Amino acid sequence: MKRIYDPVHHFIELTAAEARLLDSTVLQRLRRLRQLGLAYLAFPSAEHSRFSHALGALAMGTRAFDQLAREGREFFVNDADAAYQRRLVRAALILHDIGHGPFSHACEAVLGVRHEERTRAMLALPEMQTHLEELEVDPKHVLDLIMGSAQTPYPVLAEIVSGPNLDADRMDYLLRDAYFTGVTSGRYDADQLVASLRIFHIDGRLVLGIDRRGVVALESFVLARYMMFASVYFHHTTRMFERILQRVLRELWPDPHVLDPIDEFLRWDDFRVLNELRDSPSEPARALRERLRLYAVAAEFNAEHDLRVFETCQAALWERFGKEAVWSDEQSQLIHRLPLQIDGNSRTVWVGTASGAIVDAREASDLIAKLSGQAFWRKLFVERSRVEVEEARRICREISRAVVT
Amino acid sequence: MKRIYDPVHHFIELTAAEARLLDSTVLQRLRRLRQLGLAYLAFPSAEHSRFSHALGALAMGTRAFDQLAREGREFFVNDADAAYQRRLVRAALILHDIGHGPFSHACEAVLGVRHEERTRAMLALPEMQTHLEELEVDPKHVLDLIMGSAQTPYPVLAEIVSGPNLDADRMDYLLRDAYFTGVTSGRYDADQLVASLRIFHIDGRLVLGIDRRGVVALESFVLARYMMFASVYFHHTTRMFERILQRVLRELWPDPHVLDPIDEFLRWDDFRVLNELRDSPSEPARALRERLRLYAVAAEFNAEHDLRVFETCQAALWERFGKEAVWSDEQSQLIHRLPLQIDGNSRTVWVGTASGAIVDAREASDLIAKLSGQAFWRKLFVERSRVEVEEARRICREISRAVVT
Amino acid sequence: MKRIYDPVHHFIELTAAEARLLDSTVLQRLRRLRQLGLAYLAFPSAEHSRFSHALGALAMGTRAFDQLAREGREFFVNDADAAYQRRLVRAALILHDIGHGPFSHACEAVLGVRHEERTRAMLALPEMQTHLEELEVDPKHVLDLIMGSAQTPYPVLAEIVSGPNLDADRMDYLLRDAYFTGVTSGRYDADQLVASLRIFHIDGRLVLGIDRRGVVALESFVLARYMMFASVYFHHTTRMFERILQRVLRELWPDPHVLDPIDEFLRWDDFRVLNELRDSPSEPARALRERLRLYAVAAEFNAEHDLRVFETCQAALWERFGKEAVWSDEQSQLIHRLPLQIDGNSRTVWVGTASGAIVDAREASDLIAKLSGQAFWRKLFVERSRVEVEEARRICREISRAVVT
Amino acid sequence: MKRIYDPVHHFIELTAAEARLLDSTVLQRLRRLRQLGLAYLAFPSAEHSRFSHALGALAMGTRAFDQLAREGREFFVNDADAAYQRRLVRAALILHDIGHGPFSHACEAVLGVRHEERTRAMLALPEMQTHLEELEVDPKHVLDLIMGSAQTPYPVLAEIVSGPNLDADRMDYLLRDAYFTGVTSGRYDADQLVASLRIFHIDGRLVLGIDRRGVVALESFVLARYMMFASVYFHHTTRMFERILQRVLRELWPDPHVLDPIDEFLRWDDFRVLNELRDSPSEPARALRERLRLYAVAAEFNAEHDLRVFETCQAALWERFGKEAVWSDEQSQLIHRLPLQIDGNSRTVWVGTASGAIVDAREASDLIAKLSGQAFWRKLFVERSRVEVEEARRICREISRAVVT
Repeated sequence: MKRIYDPVHHFIELTAAEARLLDSTVLQRLRRLRQLGLAYLAFPSAEHSRFSHALGALAMGTRAFDQLAREGREFFVNDADAAYQRRLVRAALILHDIGHGPFSHACEAVLGVRHEERTRAMLALPEMQTHLEELEVDPKHVLDLIMGSAQTPYPVLAEIVSGPNLDADRMDYLLRDAYFTGVTSGRYDADQLVASLRIFHIDGRLVLGIDRRGVVALESFVLARYMMFASVYFHHTTRMFERILQRVLRELWPDPHVLDPIDEFLRWDDFRVLNELRDSPSEPARALRERLRLYAVAAEFNAEHDLRVFETCQAALWERFGKEAVWSDEQSQLIHRLPLQIDGNSRTVWVGTASGAIVDAREASDLIAKLSGQAFWRKLFVERSRVEVEEARRICREISRAVVT
Repeated sequence: MKRIYDPVHHFIELTAAEARLLDSTVLQRLRRLRQLGLAYLAFPSAEHSRFSHALGALAMGTRAFDQLAREGREFFVNDADAAYQRRLVRAALILHDIGHGPFSHACEAVLGVRHEERTRAMLALPEMQTHLEELEVDPKHVLDLIMGSAQTPYPVLAEIVSGPNLDADRMDYLLRDAYFTGVTSGRYDADQLVASLRIFHIDGRLVLGIDRRGVVALESFVLARYMMFASVYFHHTTRMFERILQRVLRELWPDPHVLDPIDEFLRWDDFRVLNELRDSPSEPARALRERLRLYAVAAEFNAEHDLRVFETCQAALWERFGKEAVWSDEQSQLIHRLPLQIDGNSRTVWVGTASGAIVDAREASDLIAKLSGQAFWRKLFVERSRVEVEEARRICREISRAVVT
Repeated sequence: MKRIYDPVHHFIELTAAEARLLDSTVLQRLRRLRQLGLAYLAFPSAEHSRFSHALGALAMGTRAFDQLAREGREFFVNDADAAYQRRLVRAALILHDIGHGPFSHACEAVLGVRHEERTRAMLALPEMQTHLEELEVDPKHVLDLIMGSAQTPYPVLAEIVSGPNLDADRMDYLLRDAYFTGVTSGRYDADQLVASLRIFHIDGRLVLGIDRRGVVALESFVLARYMMFASVYFHHTTRMFERILQRVLRELWPDPHVLDPIDEFLRWDDFRVLNELRDSPSEPARALRERLRLYAVAAEFNAEHDLRVFETCQAALWERFGKEAVWSDEQSQLIHRLPLQIDGNSRTVWVGTASGAIVDAREASDLIAKLSGQAFWRKLFVERSRVEVEEARRICREISRAVVT
Repeated sequence: MKRIYDPVHHFIELTAAEARLLDSTVLQRLRRLRQLGLAYLAFPSAEHSRFSHALGALAMGTRAFDQLAREGREFFVNDADAAYQRRLVRAALILHDIGHGPFSHACEAVLGVRHEERTRAMLALPEMQTHLEELEVDPKHVLDLIMGSAQTPYPVLAEIVSGPNLDADRMDYLLRDAYFTGVTSGRYDADQLVASLRIFHIDGRLVLGIDRRGVVALESFVLARYMMFASVYFHHTTRMFERILQRVLRELWPDPHVLDPIDEFLRWDDFRVLNELRDSPSEPARALRERLRLYAVAAEFNAEHDLRVFETCQAALWERFGKEAVWSDEQSQLIHRLPLQIDGNSRTVWVGTASGAIVDAREASDLIAKLSGQAFWRKLFVERSRVEVEEARRICREISRAVVT
């Protein structure tokens, strides 16, 4: 057993085969992909990588798995099956983010290929096949968990790896992003949440959920997601530089297909992109180098009743400065980060109640019901080179006031 | 300057006169009043006293005051006035809880005298008058701040000491209760909240509020209140033993007026009550000594839409077991602990916006709007000696199911 | 499984039988014994009880046991033996402090009965015999572990419960005392220390030790003990009030045998003592009530080379003010709290090295070698009512200066 | 005032001119220099940059300065002087690390130019002159503080910026490295240490020291340095890869003078080095990419009495495998990281005693006396490609055993 220090989970233990996988070039590359992309331009110490997150997801997912195993032995065919599932979920958690490119979502937006597709290609590399063999897991099973495939024979493990709500990915990144940004409100009661995890049988399927004693912990988890969204993921500075970065990436890769071969794709990471733009004379490259704020926030909105004001402001800015000069950012651009389902209709989290019934978390918690609806965060940015910022703000202010009164 | 260690605020500094006040019998008595009363029966390490909380409120309120002083010098007539107000708010914060009796609210319920009245009597004691003289503050000004009197010439200080939302009392006790119970979700972003405090002029009055950059911190504060309410303050074990305690206190003080003289009142504290019941043969005394759960939760409710179910269940239990055997606990019993105003109408917190307008926090934050409405937490307890608990639970379960479907 | 929140260990799990034991009057009494006695007079928030410490020792000792079990299955005869030993060590940890009286060491000094003897008597009570039966452990085995008896068939468990260096008692109380005083330097790397625990065979006996990868963690543990001793346990304010308390206790119990019957002894706790002295007119009682500092520190010493200076100062003070007016406090009064063995000769901790040899920690760590020698902390107090403090300090200062130059 | 989140210091405040300085290319480059170089290969989350450390040193140094200013107003000529010194020390702290190259000490070893020289050249750049002008500080004063020049008119500020013991650089990096590695033993009692800082007049000079109440905090600080040295800075994995890195850098810069021009030097950072070695076929480059352990530890030593054993082992390995195959690492390679002065003779820290005398910390603290002597950490590595590792270890083991017995 190899033990690794981690400030979020203290110790993380690895088998020899897992440790060798971590030393592969595919995994080592994650050290050069930052978990929060450009957020370090707003939160200087948010420099943590997807590599440390992969370890954290491993730790969190193993805790979740061990909790489920302790609660329900009937969930496994036999001890060998339990051991296999444990190896499998651990392998998938280590590997779940390998498909990300430089600055992740900006890269996907420019290149048009989803990271899950890259993952599939990477897992097919001979080097990775060898590692999976040493880990004694079926590559197809691993891929199913990462892709969240409906075909997986292990649907509960898939929820742990890539589910929408109780996944170890999210459980780790909230704690980790809170730790490294210093935004304490992203912490939640992880011990209690994990201890509450249960497997339920619903309509003949096994699903992941929580025991009713975990409702308060689940509330703290949803709130942590909410707070981190508001404070960090949708922070105007980060969002602005992510937009600027997209311009840089388009200059860097005029032909997006250049990165299609997985070997070429693997040669790119955040560090290389930053390196390439060191001497570039282009405006966005310079902006990233010197934190030049090319855009300014003209107005922000966060509630449903703001929707009409937002639209009126946007129209006014378009008319006055032209559509090109205005950028309307909204939370739907960051859908994977939202506290809960965006449409307010999908199920959230299954909760076992005292009566034995299994209900949606919105029924078990008034707070979650209130928070699970659609979000309405929006920011109107204007480009400083084309717009007199104070005028733009005044326009929005006047519209807001008129509506309020 | 005397420096005191505190795990929540690290250091707390005191002047010599303040340190002498802390050594008085009136203040030392607070060491024998626990901040969370009987909550230690549910959270074993929640044994912290009102004494450490008084120091914490002092630390937090001083930070708030110094922040306001730094932002707005015009708030003071001159340096002497600023120094006076600082001495005054500090004195009031140290003294704000002296009027509490053993187990605080249970004691008030039984004796029928509010702690603010006791405070008035204590401040009139010659010993305390001497201390206030040494602190160079006007006793009347101190009392006004603690009582939250509308007559105070220092309305902003009154909000810091005893306001409903941004008071140092609450700012400290949330952090402290979270620290000592181990319920991490009670933490909020105190640094940012304090840094956002501002004084506004509204309708010719000075009021306390926050800068718009503090909205997320305010959200974290409201959520911390919510989470602590749900996890700790309204915990069924604590609530049950508080009810049992009231029976003990009624036995202990058959004539509630015995404690009317302030000298006699000062001779009582939590430790003495626990001491007195050591040999008592009564059932509630024994229950407190050995954690006998005389009641059991038959059902819990936390949402508005549960109201009708609650009432139906309550009626059914009354009918089946008699009113005496049923105890309906609801959040209105704990009104001072609620996240925000109970009626959903009063103002919450003033927020200065980018436009210069000053709005209620519910307008500035969709989350606060959602949370600021009336709460609907309710628990139905039954007495174990009179009720077959499983039957009571089944009755409630069946009613719930019928309503859900 | 019952889960209890604890701020130091997060969750603590209990079986139903263990939970019932905790609810017994013998254990509930520990809630009214503070872990650090009067230290709250120097560190206001150090109000934590031996009850929460008993839970913490349980948590820490269980982690130690589980680590050993994971490393060496050959340590057990079979699964039933492993399960028995786990129940046994847990029972002993819960019970290890029940024999303490009010303010522990002050009480022992006045009454002259060691807490281990009280423990023996308590375990013999019918109520406790019933609990031990429910826990399915042999009372004799439990007592052996708590007494550290050489006759125990479970010597490694005895080291976990009451050993001099790697015991769960110490592992918990350092973390806990650091947490509740706010003195952060008492923290050490507990995760790594526990993960390093090993069982060695030495001269035909099983002994507890650590793997060489744990040396740095062991160093941090020894340093934590050093820092807590210097900052908290030997703090002059605490020590002074402990001395005053002994005078109070002698007044309270003129005949120390009054508490010999275990039933009577069980009726005493810290709270009752504080209660009894509420109205006492004696000087020490008043001193405890109002934090009157009856003594003052004339000089402090902490190194071997100070020994001669200390003796010279002591002699000078005796001569000038009389022996009665001077109190020489030294670390040997607190021997159980010292970082490592006082005489510098006994073994410290066994360490397994890379070469397979098992050596004393002083060989494996230069730092531990430096710290494991005899300690020389001493404080000279004078009684304020008999001594002009400034004069006493001047006398000591002059002696110190003469020696230094 | 601009506020920046930092997980170690919570908030850091900046003036507008300071914020502009931070946005300069010279400062932004620090985001691409990791504070702990290659330590992330042993502690995955130690990915924090010199940029966040520069902010942390600013925060810590400002606290130190404000503490001194509060204690001794006579230290300043007038308010303008106090304001100037504050601006000056803040500017120097922000800038104190700009001269570092990629992987800092490895880079210095290969290129042969000390970072202080680079700093001088960078401060002379027109861009930086403009920034210093905006900050209203004299560039020469800034440089003196960073270089620790004896000519500075501000010797106390120089101790804060670049002193050997109580500098803000060290005060921040210990906390920061502990936070980001997860090695908790690097924490010390910073609040108490800062609160104890004092200025003394010794032989007509102003020097930085501490009040006697800070001795325990100073001990905790020295111990934190000790623990971080043992756990992190001298960790064998980090040291091994640093050695491998030197081979990479020599291949990368066959002519070390290529980086002499400051413009060229500024174009290099950790990220670029990692980028350049992506496709290199050389053995050390591959080792860094895939964490290949080219060396193995044959034996470690940490005490003075080990010195002879170390030398005997080294000689034996040389003889058996050749000098080329053996690498003897010792703490003197890391002299700036050592807990205290290496030679055991220089003064450590001035401490004001109760008697008014000012003594060295070794006199005031037995613990510091014990720790302040020379250190004797040594590790013998062998190259795996040339040496049978188990044989090398056996050779050392046998020598060690022979000496012990």
